[in-house]
Amino acid sequence: MHHVHHHDMKLYGGIKLFSGSASPELSQKIADYLKLPLSDREIIDFPNENIFVKLKGSVRGQDVYVIQSTSAPVHRNLMELLIMIQTLRLDSAARITAVVPYLCYGRSDKKDQPRVPITARLVADMLEVAGADRYMTLDPHAGQVQGFFSIPGDVLTVSHLLVKHIKENLRPHMQDPVVVSADLGFAKKGRNYAADLDTPIAFIEKRRHGNDAKAEALSIIGDVKGRDAIIVDDEVDTGGSIGQAVKLVKEMGARDVYLAFFHPILSKNGAERLAALPIKQIITTDSVPLSPEKMKALEGKITVLSVAELLGEVIRRAHEGRSVGEMFNE
Amino acid sequence: MHHVHHHDMKLYGGIKLFSGSASPELSQKIADYLKLPLSDREIIDFPNENIFVKLKGSVRGQDVYVIQSTSAPVHRNLMELLIMIQTLRLDSAARITAVVPYLCYGRSDKKDQPRVPITARLVADMLEVAGADRYMTLDPHAGQVQGFFSIPGDVLTVSHLLVKHIKENLRPHMQDPVVVSADLGFAKKGRNYAADLDTPIAFIEKRRHGNDAKAEALSIIGDVKGRDAIIVDDEVDTGGSIGQAVKLVKEMGARDVYLAFFHPILSKNGAERLAALPIKQIITTDSVPLSPEKMKALEGKITVLSVAELLGEVIRRAHEGRSVGEMFNE
Amino acid sequence: MHHVHHHDMKLYGGIKLFSGSASPELSQKIADYLKLPLSDREIIDFPNENIFVKLKGSVRGQDVYVIQSTSAPVHRNLMELLIMIQTLRLDSAARITAVVPYLCYGRSDKKDQPRVPITARLVADMLEVAGADRYMTLDPHAGQVQGFFSIPGDVLTVSHLLVKHIKENLRPHMQDPVVVSADLGFAKKGRNYAADLDTPIAFIEKRRHGNDAKAEALSIIGDVKGRDAIIVDDEVDTGGSIGQAVKLVKEMGARDVYLAFFHPILSKNGAERLAALPIKQIITTDSVPLSPEKMKALEGKITVLSVAELLGEVIRRAHEGRSVGEMFNE
Amino acid sequence: MHHVHHHDMKLYGGIKLFSGSASPELSQKIADYLKLPLSDREIIDFPNENIFVKLKGSVRGQDVYVIQSTSAPVHRNLMELLIMIQTLRLDSAARITAVVPYLCYGRSDKKDQPRVPITARLVADMLEVAGADRYMTLDPHAGQVQGFFSIPGDVLTVSHLLVKHIKENLRPHMQDPVVVSADLGFAKKGRNYAADLDTPIAFIEKRRHGNDAKAEALSIIGDVKGRDAIIVDDEVDTGGSIGQAVKLVKEMGARDVYLAFFHPILSKNGAERLAALPIKQIITTDSVPLSPEKMKALEGKITVLSVAELLGEVIRRAHEGRSVGEMFNE
Amino acid sequence: MHHVHHHDMKLYGGIKLFSGSASPELSQKIADYLKLPLSDREIIDFPNENIFVKLKGSVRGQDVYVIQSTSAPVHRNLMELLIMIQTLRLDSAARITAVVPYLCYGRSDKKDQPRVPITARLVADMLEVAGADRYMTLDPHAGQVQGFFSIPGDVLTVSHLLVKHIKENLRPHMQDPVVVSADLGFAKKGRNYAADLDTPIAFIEKRRHGNDAKAEALSIIGDVKGRDAIIVDDEVDTGGSIGQAVKLVKEMGARDVYLAFFHPILSKNGAERLAALPIKQIITTDSVPLSPEKMKALEGKITVLSVAELLGEVIRRAHEGRSVGEMFNE
Amino acid sequence: MHHVHHHDMKLYGGIKLFSGSASPELSQKIADYLKLPLSDREIIDFPNENIFVKLKGSVRGQDVYVIQSTSAPVHRNLMELLIMIQTLRLDSAARITAVVPYLCYGRSDKKDQPRVPITARLVADMLEVAGADRYMTLDPHAGQVQGFFSIPGDVLTVSHLLVKHIKENLRPHMQDPVVVSADLGFAKKGRNYAADLDTPIAFIEKRRHGNDAKAEALSIIGDVKGRDAIIVDDEVDTGGSIGQAVKLVKEMGARDVYLAFFHPILSKNGAERLAALPIKQIITTDSVPLSPEKMKALEGKITVLSVAELLGEVIRRAHEGRSVGEMFNE
Repeated sequence: MHHVHHHDMKLYGGIKLFSGSASPELSQKIADYLKLPLSDREIIDFPNENIFVKLKGSVRGQDVYVIQSTSAPVHRNLMELLIMIQTLRLDSAARITAVVPYLCYGRSDKKDQPRVPITARLVADMLEVAGADRYMTLDPHAGQVQGFFSIPGDVLTVSHLLVKHIKENLRPHMQDPVVVSADLGFAKKGRNYAADLDTPIAFIEKRRHGNDAKAEALSIIGDVKGRDAIIVDDEVDTGGSIGQAVKLVKEMGARDVYLAFFHPILSKNGAERLAALPIKQIITTDSVPLSPEKMKALEGKITVLSVAELLGEVIRRAHEGRSVGEMFNE
Repeated sequence: MHHVHHHDMKLYGGIKLFSGSASPELSQKIADYLKLPLSDREIIDFPNENIFVKLKGSVRGQDVYVIQSTSAPVHRNLMELLIMIQTLRLDSAARITAVVPYLCYGRSDKKDQPRVPITARLVADMLEVAGADRYMTLDPHAGQVQGFFSIPGDVLTVSHLLVKHIKENLRPHMQDPVVVSADLGFAKKGRNYAADLDTPIAFIEKRRHGNDAKAEALSIIGDVKGRDAIIVDDEVDTGGSIGQAVKLVKEMGARDVYLAFFHPILSKNGAERLAALPIKQIITTDSVPLSPEKMKALEGKITVLSVAELLGEVIRRAHEGRSVGEMFNE
Repeated sequence: MHHVHHHDMKLYGGIKLFSGSASPELSQKIADYLKLPLSDREIIDFPNENIFVKLKGSVRGQDVYVIQSTSAPVHRNLMELLIMIQTLRLDSAARITAVVPYLCYGRSDKKDQPRVPITARLVADMLEVAGADRYMTLDPHAGQVQGFFSIPGDVLTVSHLLVKHIKENLRPHMQDPVVVSADLGFAKKGRNYAADLDTPIAFIEKRRHGNDAKAEALSIIGDVKGRDAIIVDDEVDTGGSIGQAVKLVKEMGARDVYLAFFHPILSKNGAERLAALPIKQIITTDSVPLSPEKMKALEGKITVLSVAELLGEVIRRAHEGRSVGEMFNE
Repeated sequence: MHHVHHHDMKLYGGIKLFSGSASPELSQKIADYLKLPLSDREIIDFPNENIFVKLKGSVRGQDVYVIQSTSAPVHRNLMELLIMIQTLRLDSAARITAVVPYLCYGRSDKKDQPRVPITARLVADMLEVAGADRYMTLDPHAGQVQGFFSIPGDVLTVSHLLVKHIKENLRPHMQDPVVVSADLGFAKKGRNYAADLDTPIAFIEKRRHGNDAKAEALSIIGDVKGRDAIIVDDEVDTGGSIGQAVKLVKEMGARDVYLAFFHPILSKNGAERLAALPIKQIITTDSVPLSPEKMKALEGKITVLSVAELLGEVIRRAHEGRSVGEMFNE
Repeated sequence: MHHVHHHDMKLYGGIKLFSGSASPELSQKIADYLKLPLSDREIIDFPNENIFVKLKGSVRGQDVYVIQSTSAPVHRNLMELLIMIQTLRLDSAARITAVVPYLCYGRSDKKDQPRVPITARLVADMLEVAGADRYMTLDPHAGQVQGFFSIPGDVLTVSHLLVKHIKENLRPHMQDPVVVSADLGFAKKGRNYAADLDTPIAFIEKRRHGNDAKAEALSIIGDVKGRDAIIVDDEVDTGGSIGQAVKLVKEMGARDVYLAFFHPILSKNGAERLAALPIKQIITTDSVPLSPEKMKALEGKITVLSVAELLGEVIRRAHEGRSVGEMFNE
Repeated sequence: MHHVHHHDMKLYGGIKLFSGSASPELSQKIADYLKLPLSDREIIDFPNENIFVKLKGSVRGQDVYVIQSTSAPVHRNLMELLIMIQTLRLDSAARITAVVPYLCYGRSDKKDQPRVPITARLVADMLEVAGADRYMTLDPHAGQVQGFFSIPGDVLTVSHLLVKHIKENLRPHMQDPVVVSADLGFAKKGRNYAADLDTPIAFIEKRRHGNDAKAEALSIIGDVKGRDAIIVDDEVDTGGSIGQAVKLVKEMGARDVYLAFFHPILSKNGAERLAALPIKQIITTDSVPLSPEKMKALEGKITVLSVAELLGEVIRRAHEGRSVGEMFNE
């Protein structure tokens, strides 16, 4: 009798969802998708800025997911996440997954000059030393960031969501659309957009002139004349670069301009700046929370797709030990 | 259909209890409380002092608790504990918890002068490198010892037991009781005693005189005159300091003197020395085993409260993944 | 010929001092003491809050000291310190010492209730994972914090400075002075003050009343009547507790009140609050930088002793491989 | 109510078996024994020799066993094993066991001269850093190799199989058999053979002569004259040493010669060389796959015992959390 | 007297260079540049493929550099490098730097589909676990590979060499040159080429058609008509993709075609294939050794620039603790 | 000008020797050989058995050697060694070498049955976690113990000393000497003795009979009749096994019997037992200190060779960064 007794039960105890302070609305949506409550916890910012966390119930042996975008205030939110992870670990959670829709410092991912940091690696190290067993994140600046972690993770893209939205709602009204990659570092992902939307592609090239480090000239490789342009990038911060890109695309004869990006940082007056640009429609996600003020500034011009369902489903599958790749037919 | 399938089953296989050589009686009491047998193992001390351990049954995938106080012979018992942990790890136990009612070297917890060790940290490192996944201990000298471990643990206090006993059995017969903290390092815990027993508090202060390192003078801050004094400390070793404290308290006009402490080390002739002091009642625990000789010396003057139920209940909850804080309404 | 060839030369290359953004003045004073320049570096806070660091010269094989208090803005300053350490490590510094006059989160040093963090340990882990080889700090809340680090460090006290100042400048004018420890957790350090100043000691005891967590009652153990009181503590934040202490001491009949503490956090309106209290003189240090506004509020009432010479001398000895204990006749 | 709720369920999800490229037949036999399929995976050797692995289904939360002998091509097969382990880890397998019937570099297990490697330790380190949680192997050159691993493992011997086969099939036809240990490093294991087969034992001693490092002289300690000799060793590579041993045993008057060893490396023309020796029967295992060519060369002279049942049963027990020692009445 | 005694001496003992088997000629050139001998070592490949290393002299306290490209045979060479590193570590070298001109598995740097490895991270982990303290490499596929290492390293580019050669020797003869990036993943580095050579840029885009995974269509974004095209990429393996690119560029009307890449893998018949293409000149380096056969096939069409001087100078500066960035005016 | 500046200076500051409590005489001899003082330290055994260590001078940046045999009391001495190492590490020693002439638990080096420890690995782990950077030891039971350490070490043999003594002082008076290996696990080392002394070799074989685990029968393989027998082993504990061996050798007709072994444990009445055996001369070393009582019991029958010169010379070479192999012409 040599049959192995199959043990298909799951590895962990009950699932628990916690939300940090950074993205309460997204966390609630994820919880709603999973038909689970957010677990109760107390978070206090003392006058000396020190953050204090107290879990309101035991997590012993539980499979815990902490949802926290490391958006502004970046360092406070990162520290809060680390403290929550340590607290969960010290309370003997069976497994802790840091769910970080937007992971800060993604652009500091290599030393392209001497004597600079690789802060994205540092952030990975910090999450691990705090006690995370796994992590989830959306569209880091470079896919290689996965190799910065020693722990396994689910690194997902929201481009499916954006492409689907464009295809169904915007593409039918476009004329000869072309995808324009706003940055050469985004060239491959831009190509994927173009392939999915079945359009040609063009690239914006930035080049320095002479010795002046600040004198950058933009040009476009590829054809945009008479076409509707869909400018794509991963995140938009103050909107300065995107503003230049839109201007150039227009100068080169593009018709309508659309803008799609994953993470709406929109720091400083980024929202106002975007609002002032000749863009027909902006498509982004709620990986980073948009304040009511920013939403107001962009009213009518912006569509925010929620990543809640995507993250919720991945959490569910991670907890149940089922394939995530399956969600994408992989 | 987005409901997560709840998996409330536990993380580990069956529970197994092992006892080291140091505290067989306490271990048996814990096993009795849990209605579980102590697992069989062979421990041999070879003529060259090397300790040999052999488990009498497999622990693969089990949730194992090894109970061992690191009381005298301290280093042998510590090594036995480490060897047991390594043996369990090499036999693929799923989780190993070192249950150490009394953790040695707790007073070596900081460098208060240059070029000295922090042996409590070393002991924590040794438990981890041997393979412990968790630990449990009672009233370490400083609560900060929890921060010496990278693994999670349950650090518990037995003061609840002592306070309860005093309240129910001794307090009714006392006159104007005052708690006396035997050491300034115990001031906060002494305050907690006083608050729980609803008495005032006094402190014994030790101060060096002049250049002579050994010339220490004791004084009392606070009022003990005409009061019953409950001297409190964490552990009593040879009884020298406590002897001085009792003498001083008496000189200052205290009525009856009681003594309460967590860990009865009572090395050398500590038991005899305590027996000779004008103390009405001593209350302590069995975190450290008291030999029949010591018990005899202190007969009628000592009450030993067992920590078996406390540890047993924490073990049960740790195994079942339930809250420990709940036991203390936290 | 069996003589060992003595090699008394030092282990590291040249010394380099870097300063973070938090304490430029203290860093400059330390550099002045050492007659060394502060090494040049660029620190940029991008609009998305991400901090960028670039060293302006190579540190290969150098013995580097980074001076940064983790004072407000706490999390930004902590992250800047971590990024600087990683940058130095990636640039192959031979040894990196984090010089942190004030180390944040020192009070989160144990789990005194279930399900809370030990953030001081987390901070130690973060410094290590970033790449610090050693650390220096002044008067952490608990000396045990040394055991939270796996790397060696120099944990120093500034009480020598404060005691010396009080002895030479204030003590001659005091009448029957008594040291008052503002917190029972500071009892042992308060005793050391009293011993050094050759005064008696008193303690302020905080006790909760009934079920109301916020109803705390203060009392004094020991005698302050008709005496000049020197209230001592490790740090003062908003000044709320100290305000209560001063009021109580006065009510109990103390004459003049002095206040000495190591770290002037003084968050919110702490400086104004202190200024309004009936305190004759406040003595503290520059471990945390005091803004001109705070200095102005406390003008005439505060003496700020500099820790630059102390830290500078310790850095010098660490670099030269000489004893630090020697500085304190140890 | 103090009964612990027994949790006898297993720790891991379903079991999954993967096979590397090195030992497909043995892997299939193990799978057959367990009545389990081998999980599907794609392995590609690119023109630049880089190996690419893709799992064809998710292993999240599964208890995975990867079967791969590190036989020739040794370094390719070792790397393939490491890559498979990392892939499984990154896909969040709950537990990964490297099942390595023959572990390469076993003879590089100590520094018996200065400035040489301990490659067996390096291989252990590599398996761990790739992410193996446990390992299984058969008859490493030295049992101490278990101490090179920080992870637990099942280190098994196949000598039971060989002894059983000899006892049942060959021993009845032998005259005055004697076990001859081919190497002094195999002396203890040779003794075990002799004890199990109830025969005397003899040893082959190799000794260098004079200054010439290559001039080795062989001699026999013990009596083989007129006896059937069973030469035993752990592995046979080119067959050079064994050829000398057979010759010497014959010269010393042995009757029939048998040869038993665990691992049939048989590199270069080892199979042909063995075939040419006056050996009556060779007994070995399939821990290392024998090519059809080698099998042909040794046809009629070799018996290959399969280790599939042994490994299969150990895998089953490991998955089910049952004792392996029990299989050997231990 | 507060001056720090400056200690500008270096951290390590004498420098030692070792060469693995993979790149003896490059190693010798580096040694010649440094006017240092290659240290003597014995490397044996045993019949069972196991590699044995023995150092011929002590490296205690030395600063050791091991030069080894992980070119074909890839896994053997990687293992040899790891064994050499471990041997040096066990012989107590003070610092070990792995100098790996070409680092294998660079393209396996992220999970762009589920259930695949990140082998470049595994290789980094292996180098670290073997004992490397630092590493040096040239133009990894993605700069982010630096973040895969926990140890510091010097990651250098040879594009300076190629650009300089093209500028001085080829550019003067070109007509309206355009840089063509052979892959969108190389877009940014292609842009740098174009900026350095002051030419426009074009990109080759690969896109899959329909469901057939193999049906890839190439197109060019940007203008090559009537221009001399300099196709740039990081490495060339079998030459298949480059062949397609050359064909397309020609079809689109380019005049002369040049090809520049860092690492000449040229596996299988890659050299022959390149030789057959209508390329005017190929420029590459000796980061990977080119066999005489390959050199012969490409005779007259290829220029191999040596990286010896670059690596030699970086080794020299690393040993002497001087800036490497300085070499590039950074 | 590409010459590398040679830096032949040493890596560490001055050398410091410390001695634990276990082997003060050997430590002093080593110090004498090196013409260095033993550094001053205070070691206190408190009544509660806790050991306290205080260094009497700074070791910052020094190259420190701690000499301590882990002989009886084994666990106390091991702990003292660990505490000393941690103290040195916390005081920022540049390098710490544990010099352990006799390393305890060497025979617990593999799992030869299920559910037993590998304590030798645990001891290695403990030395590393305490902070040792290197170790030195003499003749561990198995050479593979080197692979248990992650840190480099010098593992030396004293057999050279014993062979030299026998050759010069005893061999001239022997008749037809034969080396007898007392245990099959010592077979290879026994062969080395025989080769060095140019004698034949014989082996003592132990074999269990029937089911009774204790019924062991001894026999001799090889010829001892009429010969002087030199019984060799690594250590002698109670002398029980050696007693049986001597008896057997005598029964088999040996003439004079000599006994040589590395480590004189001689626990219990081992010395008396040896003294009572018909042995002509015993040769051993001072790796383990022999008490005056033991020396007296064995007076006239024992020669104790000192390992001080050997260890001293290795320490010297380690400090100066010179080859140790050179001492043995390797």
